[in-house]
Amino acid sequence: MIAFNKQLSEICKSKNNSLCIGLDIDNRKLVNNSISYMDGFIKDIIESTIDLCPIYKINLAFYERLGKAGYDILCKIPEYINNRAVTIADAKRGDIGNSSKYYAEAIFQTLNYNAITISPYMGEDSIKPFCEYSDKGVFILCLTSNLGSNNFQNKKINDKELYIHVAELAVKMNVNDNIGLVVGATKSEQMEIIKEYSFNLPWLIPGVGFQGGSLENSILIGSKNKSTPIINVSRGIIYAGNGSINDIIIATEEYTKKIRSIL
Amino acid sequence: MIAFNKQLSEICKSKNNSLCIGLDIDNRKLVNNSISYMDGFIKDIIESTIDLCPIYKINLAFYERLGKAGYDILCKIPEYINNRAVTIADAKRGDIGNSSKYYAEAIFQTLNYNAITISPYMGEDSIKPFCEYSDKGVFILCLTSNLGSNNFQNKKINDKELYIHVAELAVKMNVNDNIGLVVGATKSEQMEIIKEYSFNLPWLIPGVGFQGGSLENSILIGSKNKSTPIINVSRGIIYAGNGSINDIIIATEEYTKKIRSIL
Repeated sequence: MIAFNKQLSEICKSKNNSLCIGLDIDNRKLVNNSISYMDGFIKDIIESTIDLCPIYKINLAFYERLGKAGYDILCKIPEYINNRAVTIADAKRGDIGNSSKYYAEAIFQTLNYNAITISPYMGEDSIKPFCEYSDKGVFILCLTSNLGSNNFQNKKINDKELYIHVAELAVKMNVNDNIGLVVGATKSEQMEIIKEYSFNLPWLIPGVGFQGGSLENSILIGSKNKSTPIINVSRGIIYAGNGSINDIIIATEEYTKKIRSIL
Repeated sequence: MIAFNKQLSEICKSKNNSLCIGLDIDNRKLVNNSISYMDGFIKDIIESTIDLCPIYKINLAFYERLGKAGYDILCKIPEYINNRAVTIADAKRGDIGNSSKYYAEAIFQTLNYNAITISPYMGEDSIKPFCEYSDKGVFILCLTSNLGSNNFQNKKINDKELYIHVAELAVKMNVNDNIGLVVGATKSEQMEIIKEYSFNLPWLIPGVGFQGGSLENSILIGSKNKSTPIINVSRGIIYAGNGSINDIIIATEEYTKKIRSIL
């Protein structure tokens, strides 16, 4: 069984890319708002971009709002991808140990995704059950790209911000080489500091594109210590141009070109 | 539209009880492990206890691990309860604003639960979309009952623990009278302090029973300032005695009696 972080690094190397397409599809924003159209559209996006793109991130909120029909699509996405890329279930789960164990089962076994995002508020024993699957990835929220990161994440505990404490716990827990961090692209200064504390942990980096984060800084900082900087782009690709598959392919090629020029 | 906290207080008064039965059912622990048996068992628990019990909490992890069959039961539970009690989806969600909006839609509209639990790590803008449904409840994780609460929640930011800062934000955001806190029963001393900061916010209190928290302290502290102390009991009821419906009824009656003697 190959540890997740190694799998991630290998697929990024083999595609010479660290782009992650965020499949955050709202059917009401498509030319046809039926769920079957949305399903086919997702399949088309995957087929049209998977030769270039090593990672897909699926935010579960977009599918859970659709009920059973959304759940069906969540089940199908790993089948569509069929081991040709890494799938991250952006679920932001985290609960007491026994419940976290069941969430890990839900995402890694029942739904068959390769990785998950986790909220660290409940601490070490809420994160651990996910980490026990060494071939599956666990991305812990560290410093997020939204305004609300100022409420708690940016506050100091013993002269270090909460997000640094989270990074330290993540490093300590990374015995199976399968833990990463979520680090928003909008904050270059803090990214430098987090990298010092997080060593070679891979980062999942949202906030490039619509939120204004720098692609160049994200890659330069995120790739230090031979770690993988996952550049997540959602709206900047899935709603590119007039939203046609052709425009999505062009946007994927453009992001890939930019990423390759910096990597 | 009656604000959630008022609805909660009224149903607790009308049943003279603040017991919450945690429907955390693991089919593998039942005498028959089929999903249809689990479904019927849940329906039986509800029918046998709903005259006494004003609140049911459903931890989504237990259902998500079962895939589509678990999702079906999640849909059915609010139908079984049929407005005779409050339903709390213990989902511990929280994401950037747009995604939180979709999670709120998933839980409050698609699944039709009355309340949700939220992780506060991503801050105010991640919590707000849930609070905009004034007739639905939002219980924010404050101080949890697990060991991992020591990693971050118990750490001091400017002389006050993180959980106090969470309580303060919750009070500030409670403009629609629909916010509550999750406060573990295992820590009486901290409960007193949280009550000072959280005024009349209702508390969802896990940790009584198997985890050793004091029922008496939880009610005495949690009911100060005329607020509602929701006493959650999961394993202590659903696996009571030999796990028969009769034993579940007896455990529910016993907890109800104890709660009434303190209220």
